[in-house]
Amino acid sequence: MVGSVAFDTIETPIGRAEGVLGGSATYFAVAASFFAPVSLVAVVGDDFPDAERDYLASCGIDLSGLEVQPGRTFRWSGRYHEDMNVRDTLALELNVFADFRPELSAALRKSRFVFLANIDPALQESVLEQFEDPRVVACDTMNHWIASAREPLEALLPRVDLLVVNDEEARLLSGEVNVARAARRILELGPRSVLVKRGEYGAILFSPESVFAVPAYPLEEVFDPTGAGDAFAGGLMGYLAATGEHSEGGLRRAIVFGSVLASFVVEDFGAQRLRTLTREDIDRRYRQFVALTEF
Amino acid sequence: MVGSVAFDTIETPIGRAEGVLGGSATYFAVAASFFAPVSLVAVVGDDFPDAERDYLASCGIDLSGLEVQPGRTFRWSGRYHEDMNVRDTLALELNVFADFRPELSAALRKSRFVFLANIDPALQESVLEQFEDPRVVACDTMNHWIASAREPLEALLPRVDLLVVNDEEARLLSGEVNVARAARRILELGPRSVLVKRGEYGAILFSPESVFAVPAYPLEEVFDPTGAGDAFAGGLMGYLAATGEHSEGGLRRAIVFGSVLASFVVEDFGAQRLRTLTREDIDRRYRQFVALTEF
Repeated sequence: MVGSVAFDTIETPIGRAEGVLGGSATYFAVAASFFAPVSLVAVVGDDFPDAERDYLASCGIDLSGLEVQPGRTFRWSGRYHEDMNVRDTLALELNVFADFRPELSAALRKSRFVFLANIDPALQESVLEQFEDPRVVACDTMNHWIASAREPLEALLPRVDLLVVNDEEARLLSGEVNVARAARRILELGPRSVLVKRGEYGAILFSPESVFAVPAYPLEEVFDPTGAGDAFAGGLMGYLAATGEHSEGGLRRAIVFGSVLASFVVEDFGAQRLRTLTREDIDRRYRQFVALTEF
Repeated sequence: MVGSVAFDTIETPIGRAEGVLGGSATYFAVAASFFAPVSLVAVVGDDFPDAERDYLASCGIDLSGLEVQPGRTFRWSGRYHEDMNVRDTLALELNVFADFRPELSAALRKSRFVFLANIDPALQESVLEQFEDPRVVACDTMNHWIASAREPLEALLPRVDLLVVNDEEARLLSGEVNVARAARRILELGPRSVLVKRGEYGAILFSPESVFAVPAYPLEEVFDPTGAGDAFAGGLMGYLAATGEHSEGGLRRAIVFGSVLASFVVEDFGAQRLRTLTREDIDRRYRQFVALTEF
């Protein structure tokens, strides 16, 4: 996976966390590490503490692709509204991330499961080109790139097996309000399938042949939604990589495991909940998803 | 079922329908009639056309409880926003409905499956008291009654097996924003279970022992959401009455049939789509719900 490692300062209606380890690569990689070996491609500054590096390594994450550059690590600060689907960015310091141009090692180029987290689409494509024979390519994006870098994004989409967006991004990318019409338009842009994440309402997968919808796990308390989407993608890709499944059924189960990981992440600030999570917890909640949806 | 029969004038972003047959009783009874015999308790004015009465009778609906009073039938007019979850009431004429005080016949008092549509909670209770031995009592309500008639509503709830509300109503009734916490508070008020309808996001059933979530059918075009909630309840109660099922599994399947009926109603203005609907269409879409959700 290629993405960002950051330190986040987060305010939600329930509390505040200062300078905690975050970034799409962190959430994705830790979530995926419960299922399969994962290599993280990102950049940090020379201020990145050994303790955080040791933590990521202790999850079994391959850090050979984690560059260290002189300067400070990416920092983000945001505040969530009472309705936690809405947040304001209070401060954004790209720091060493501003000049991130990943060059993959020979070993990393052999990866078969590739996740391109939410970074500049031109950079996503330059990374994708380095892989020798990727089997499953999933890709995230955001409003900023849809509005400012549509051309490189549209060039990338035909090479993507699974585009992961939230409903607002799906609307912006397609120009359609209705989620089913939005998904159809997005499929016309080339990805093999599109997963629309809908926060507390769950997620819905569209491919040319079928539609799959899964609700979110109904939690009584959401502490912090930061990273839920990246942990979702991590659980999803980790499961796919672990099982090698190519079927529609395999992708559906992967999406449920993604939902499981997302449901845990929001139970505490930042990526804190992932530090104590076990594979047993994950499997127990997967069974709760079965009980939640079967009829 | 006890509720209203009305003539509706509806504007949505897609079009307009003038003076079409509507009201909770109409949507509910026609939807339920695909599954089980249904008796409609409501009032109309002496302007109610024979053709509409004949239509309802042709669905096999028992109209012995449909009073005719001198005066005009209930009329409602509303306009939906671009976001069709939001609507403004433009005009409301209660007419003969203002003095509706249903007295059930001896035959109707023997009904085992009772649906109390969205009317004054005191009236709901006075109707409920007339049934000799109801087995399943479901009940709808709305913001207006939650705000202005909380006491009679709270007196009614312990006698209800299934309270049917939308998410806004659940929030208002419970004082909680989070749907899981809202449902827990509502269950403390006495109903055996609570179904929260979430429009395009589906529905979620809470009982003390379990939670069941079903997505909405992802339609590419929604013409008019009027009556979707009542048709949902009609499909649900019709299925329960037809099968006599008491199990959690039976209630879950009933909720999926409710979702199926709701998904058809919104495909055309008013209750128009129900006029051409067949049981075969219903069963086909039920199977599509299985395909939509299984993993």
